[in-house]
Amino acid sequence: MKKWNIASIPGDGIGKEVVPAAEQVLHTIADIHGGFQFEFTSFPWSSEYYLEHGVMMPEDGIQTLASFDSIFLGAVGNEQLVPDHVSLWGLLIKIRREFEQVINMRPAKVLPGIASPLANPNQFDFVVVRENSEGEYSSSGGRIGNGEEEIAIQNAVFTRKGTERAMRFAFEQAKKRSGHVTSATKSNGIIHSMPFWDEVFNDVSQDYPEMTTESQHIDALAAFLVTKPETLDVVVASNLFGDILTDIGAGIMGSIGVAPAANLNVNGKYPSMFEPVHGSAPDIIGKGIANPIGQIWTAKMMLDHLGEEESATKVLEAIEQVTRQQMVTPDLGGNCTTEEVTNAIIQELKR
Amino acid sequence: MKKWNIASIPGDGIGKEVVPAAEQVLHTIADIHGGFQFEFTSFPWSSEYYLEHGVMMPEDGIQTLASFDSIFLGAVGNEQLVPDHVSLWGLLIKIRREFEQVINMRPAKVLPGIASPLANPNQFDFVVVRENSEGEYSSSGGRIGNGEEEIAIQNAVFTRKGTERAMRFAFEQAKKRSGHVTSATKSNGIIHSMPFWDEVFNDVSQDYPEMTTESQHIDALAAFLVTKPETLDVVVASNLFGDILTDIGAGIMGSIGVAPAANLNVNGKYPSMFEPVHGSAPDIIGKGIANPIGQIWTAKMMLDHLGEEESATKVLEAIEQVTRQQMVTPDLGGNCTTEEVTNAIIQELKR
Ligand SMILES: CC(C)[C@H](C(=O)O)[C@@H](O)C(=O)O
Ligand SMILES: CC(C)[C@H](C(=O)O)[C@@H](O)C(=O)O
Repeated sequence: MKKWNIASIPGDGIGKEVVPAAEQVLHTIADIHGGFQFEFTSFPWSSEYYLEHGVMMPEDGIQTLASFDSIFLGAVGNEQLVPDHVSLWGLLIKIRREFEQVINMRPAKVLPGIASPLANPNQFDFVVVRENSEGEYSSSGGRIGNGEEEIAIQNAVFTRKGTERAMRFAFEQAKKRSGHVTSATKSNGIIHSMPFWDEVFNDVSQDYPEMTTESQHIDALAAFLVTKPETLDVVVASNLFGDILTDIGAGIMGSIGVAPAANLNVNGKYPSMFEPVHGSAPDIIGKGIANPIGQIWTAKMMLDHLGEEESATKVLEAIEQVTRQQMVTPDLGGNCTTEEVTNAIIQELKR
Repeated sequence: MKKWNIASIPGDGIGKEVVPAAEQVLHTIADIHGGFQFEFTSFPWSSEYYLEHGVMMPEDGIQTLASFDSIFLGAVGNEQLVPDHVSLWGLLIKIRREFEQVINMRPAKVLPGIASPLANPNQFDFVVVRENSEGEYSSSGGRIGNGEEEIAIQNAVFTRKGTERAMRFAFEQAKKRSGHVTSATKSNGIIHSMPFWDEVFNDVSQDYPEMTTESQHIDALAAFLVTKPETLDVVVASNLFGDILTDIGAGIMGSIGVAPAANLNVNGKYPSMFEPVHGSAPDIIGKGIANPIGQIWTAKMMLDHLGEEESATKVLEAIEQVTRQQMVTPDLGGNCTTEEVTNAIIQELKR
């Protein structure tokens, strides 16, 4: 029997609550399928780990993770313990970079039964393909001068290769969907990088004459997610723009607690990492009310990536059955616990 | 009698339709008040001007504008005629920079009678104070390498002075409001500039112990504008973050066509510039259906700036009377023309 070896990193806060929940779901769907199984190896790397060891993960952490089929991550970052830029660049962003997880893919659609904050959610269903390795998230730059005279410089670095790669990935996704790609730009305000981004988008789109395309400035596009999200199919965006758009996407889905994500290695050299959009939510730690759907939907994306598409589809259907019955946690207006929602999804799968 | 000398730049597209409309309103309110009047001097600087002269404005354009009390601008940019980064850096951004209009202030609230795209608009009422002179909008950077090897670098530059100035302005605004300032940051993902931004925010907030503060990452904050905008009072943001947040703000107001803005010179050396959030809207040029409310509300902000607060309040009240009766243009679901909405506002003022 096929065995998927998964490195599990619950991380901080509610990550520790929703990762085990999603693992139960993965074990269940594997049992039902009968042809594969999961083995999870758990790593305690987190802000608490940092407080004890002075690092977010051991020196050979990356090497350790390299042998797994995938990485299943909860949430990283708890500002009350460790400054975010330390925890994130020491773990989350480090893994994204070292394993060349150059694409961050985040679907957005409203689950049945869930109230979107939009008056007219119009059945939107789109996916954001975010460039995940470069752009605005760069360690290039620094500070100079003191006191009143201090200046901070942040360099955004866009390579032709990285930009083109994200765009090709987006067009390939569009082939499996409605065939429309929207590029998030800001070439009217940002002089160097975004006109470059537009040129690359234009070049790449020549190779996909059967697709329709549009470019929208990030400010307008962010507003469109609120005013007409149903017009979007595949959105391709830089690292920062993708970050912003996907949180708005999560917002219009009704709760950031349901939004899934995948950090994909596309050259097959290293494992991909699956982590939901939400963070560690320090305010609700230990209350048992964290929404497990984001992590479970993320598990669904991992199943897709591992080639277990049929099982993946079943997991999403089970989630939809449960939300349809409004068995949801408080962030979605319900009063179920993490455990109750998880069990309901498992029961649906077993049906 | 006091005379306000205003440089009027209708600019591109619907700017040419809504600027004259707003000027009529300004003449009306001046007549009603009786103690001041407006003289508008119109400048044809625009993308069409560029096609004829190869520049967006004459060489001495800035010098010409310097002698006016304020600048009243419609919209700049029509990609079908001139690449945006040329038209904008040649006119809009140039004026912002040369006249040290270091603050861009944009209120957001729902007008009566207007349907917000939010299911539960909860009477939000906030203002975004956007740093308007530096940050991500910089000409520093460039491109290197060819073809597959090309790289584009965009430098964001944050000075202590510019950052602090925007924050102080935000705290001063908060004094006149509910006393809560939210800082838009991204110190978890962007290494150099945003931790610096946080430090400055922290320092400045020490001088305003009576205010409450919070910092939110731009991704989460963008989502909050959709999920809980009523929790915001004054938001202070960098140039790019402010740009994005204010378009979402316009989105939740029901139409970008109503959102007003002011580019403020705060050292009193140069004129400020008043321009609505919307662009030139090439798709509806000449149809007579452009929403004049954004430009008229912007005129209201100009009245405030000139010290004519009482008249400013009357203009906003007249706008609200008209939207309450749903005398609105198609972007807001109505079927009035630009002229009809403008006349209705004028009639309200005269009542
Ligand atoms: C047109 C563009 C350069 C401008 C900006 O980004 O500043 C606009 O979006 C705005 O917000 O005034
Ligand atoms: C935590 C933070 C660094 C991260 C990001 O900005 O990439 C998060 O917001 C995300 O979207 O995964």
